[in-house]
Amino acid sequence: MTRPTLSGTPDSVPTVGLPDLLESGDLDLIDRWLAQADVVEIADEMVRLPREQRAVPFRLLGKDRALEVFELLDPSVQQELLEGLRETNVRQLFEEMDPDDRARLTEEMPAKVATRLLAGLSANERRLTSTLLGYPEDSAGRLMSPEVVSLRAAMTVVQALDRLRRIGRSAETIYALPVTDDRRRLVGALGLRDLVLAEPDTLVGELMDTEVYSARVDADQEEAARLIREADLLALPIVDTEDRLVGIVTVDDAMEVLEEEDTEDVARAGGAEPLRRPYLSTSIVQVGRSRVLWLIVFLIAGFITVNVLAVFRSALDDVVVLAFFVPLVIGTAGSTGAQSATTITRALAVGEVRLEDLGRVALREATTGIALGAILGALAFVPIALLSGADIAAIVSATLLLVCTLAALIGSTLPLAAKRVGADPAVMSVPLITALVDASGLVVYFLIARAVLGI
Amino acid sequence: MTRPTLSGTPDSVPTVGLPDLLESGDLDLIDRWLAQADVVEIADEMVRLPREQRAVPFRLLGKDRALEVFELLDPSVQQELLEGLRETNVRQLFEEMDPDDRARLTEEMPAKVATRLLAGLSANERRLTSTLLGYPEDSAGRLMSPEVVSLRAAMTVVQALDRLRRIGRSAETIYALPVTDDRRRLVGALGLRDLVLAEPDTLVGELMDTEVYSARVDADQEEAARLIREADLLALPIVDTEDRLVGIVTVDDAMEVLEEEDTEDVARAGGAEPLRRPYLSTSIVQVGRSRVLWLIVFLIAGFITVNVLAVFRSALDDVVVLAFFVPLVIGTAGSTGAQSATTITRALAVGEVRLEDLGRVALREATTGIALGAILGALAFVPIALLSGADIAAIVSATLLLVCTLAALIGSTLPLAAKRVGADPAVMSVPLITALVDASGLVVYFLIARAVLGI
Repeated sequence: MTRPTLSGTPDSVPTVGLPDLLESGDLDLIDRWLAQADVVEIADEMVRLPREQRAVPFRLLGKDRALEVFELLDPSVQQELLEGLRETNVRQLFEEMDPDDRARLTEEMPAKVATRLLAGLSANERRLTSTLLGYPEDSAGRLMSPEVVSLRAAMTVVQALDRLRRIGRSAETIYALPVTDDRRRLVGALGLRDLVLAEPDTLVGELMDTEVYSARVDADQEEAARLIREADLLALPIVDTEDRLVGIVTVDDAMEVLEEEDTEDVARAGGAEPLRRPYLSTSIVQVGRSRVLWLIVFLIAGFITVNVLAVFRSALDDVVVLAFFVPLVIGTAGSTGAQSATTITRALAVGEVRLEDLGRVALREATTGIALGAILGALAFVPIALLSGADIAAIVSATLLLVCTLAALIGSTLPLAAKRVGADPAVMSVPLITALVDASGLVVYFLIARAVLGI
Repeated sequence: MTRPTLSGTPDSVPTVGLPDLLESGDLDLIDRWLAQADVVEIADEMVRLPREQRAVPFRLLGKDRALEVFELLDPSVQQELLEGLRETNVRQLFEEMDPDDRARLTEEMPAKVATRLLAGLSANERRLTSTLLGYPEDSAGRLMSPEVVSLRAAMTVVQALDRLRRIGRSAETIYALPVTDDRRRLVGALGLRDLVLAEPDTLVGELMDTEVYSARVDADQEEAARLIREADLLALPIVDTEDRLVGIVTVDDAMEVLEEEDTEDVARAGGAEPLRRPYLSTSIVQVGRSRVLWLIVFLIAGFITVNVLAVFRSALDDVVVLAFFVPLVIGTAGSTGAQSATTITRALAVGEVRLEDLGRVALREATTGIALGAILGALAFVPIALLSGADIAAIVSATLLLVCTLAALIGSTLPLAAKRVGADPAVMSVPLITALVDASGLVVYFLIARAVLGI
């Protein structure tokens, strides 16, 4: 019996991973490793293998475990894995998947392969999958399972439980049970728990909760997932434009969507496009491609700083020591901007801040920026005065005060501005904010220097 | 009947929010707003209110809805809200909370208040909460609910369902049912679904899954939550050091932990300490405090660049145009470093990359850095040559190639290094990587300039 317990003090004995075993090529050892590992471990190791090696351990798994492991993998990894398997195995896996998982996998496939595999499905599974694929990408309709069991308000508990025993086995979940009227419109919901704990002759209508959350098929996936998280739901019924029940989104799929969205936001915040697949199984070319366009944008923004410095060339000619503090000034401004930008982008993502809070946010961040700039300016004064004289120290300190305020203001308002025009707030990434703050910070610095030094 | 449907095309009619209504002071309007809103909306609006105003709408809610809204709030917000309520209301809310939520709220309270409220609890609730508070912070023990219903392998389905009807109402969940032996040791688990769909006289032992995931009370909360996500569980049984069942962690609590951890990582990546509470309900002083220490670290790191430039003063004296490209060079290096650092930090957080992958990661990132540096160097050459001559252009292009490689290497390996010494990889924030890359980039730049220009 395998029973993995997550422990507070992990084993200090180093365990041999699947990659090492595959190096050795000893199928017997691989078999033994697979037997002692649990499906989550196997799925984790599969992702870290080079794509051409993944089929080997997968073919050694028994049929049931193979399906379990397969269901835990990212659609992008599933697709690559299928390429290394025999056609009959591929067809079998494809047939046995849940319709919503199958729809997501289909999106990853070359159109020809997808068409062929869909054509090979049993009629019922094909119909379910085609329906899902008919909804827009990133919609709740794509994410939902159409295999939902609904109850009627007039049923007794016994009748409802009978219905579950009859048709509940193929449903995605029976823990959250939508209740519909005779036109399939959603009128309530109850948990399986309430059904199990109730007296046998109680009516579903008496037990059900009429304040039931739901989402339309065309609602955004991320918003549906966030509703599941915020309202602590196990599943969210999905309805069509006429309020008729068409499917259900479960909490595990919601968690996956939220993790993907967070990964996207993190990539954007770092100034790169999301990879949309596990890092180690992404080719270097794809990694480079996700970064190069943004780097070119930052490079072009960087040329603004060259021009700013060229404009102030005479000041630099006269007082070369001014150049010493350029990286310090723009670095500090960039850090302050980064702090504000990441705070506000995250607050927007989790719904703590909304568009209409722009004024409040700007005021809070400007105040914070002034305070931080004052502290940093005061701290920097003495060392700079000792190094380069009091006048230079005064220039740098005053600049720090102003640029920190400016950076906090730019860093906090631009994500909100991006959201207002319908863009992802996270495109206002730290490197982009830094580039913008660099140029304006330099102008402030040299204007102050000119005024103080009279050059 | 309130039935909020998440729609694909949100209403264009602007709705009046709770903050505006509170401004107006019209209790009747507030009451009507509360009646048409659902509990998630109310909780969302509560968070955005100034803390001294929150008690007003809360007191207008009926007892049941008040508890529902309260349970959706962050512990930090719950604690502030309690300060504005009457002692009897506070005691009642505190008594009716789940023990795990109550334990989390207690952590937020001043010790005196916590002691007083705990003393006022009924004996059973007090015992449950004290047990949880005995486990280390951030452990699975703190997160779990001790109210878990377990079954025995020798029970029939009918006996198991009877047991649920008897004691299932107070349990945190009955959807995942751990099975224990006569010494309370975990031997299996089954879902309520399997129980409901099975024949009445089947034994639990035949239905249960013996490959059951579990975590020890002292396991890390985040790891337990991640296991729930990866294995698509509804709940994770928690055991003590002797493998005896002591509680259960549910998927909604796991989602909350993962969202908090992600928010923490984002804050750190942006170079600030996490706020641990909703942004708009954090005071400006607390926001400033979360940022100032890191800014001082970055300022000190920035002083290294001042010294680097002072060392190369003669080069700047001779060729002042070299100063023009300093922000461009370090900005580009910083962006490349930011991309690598955020990618690797996230891959570590979601478990796609582990410590032992250091060599592979470094090789991949160095290769990517070389490719990106070559592209940027090539792109920058012509404009710089036109602006400042071919020799300066050659210097900057060569520098870009080298610093991009260096930055990708530093940005990717430092998070892994932080993890190896037991620190949070996210402390290798973008601003810190930038500061480190700035100084080394400048050295590279001036060494190349010296060599090319012979100065």
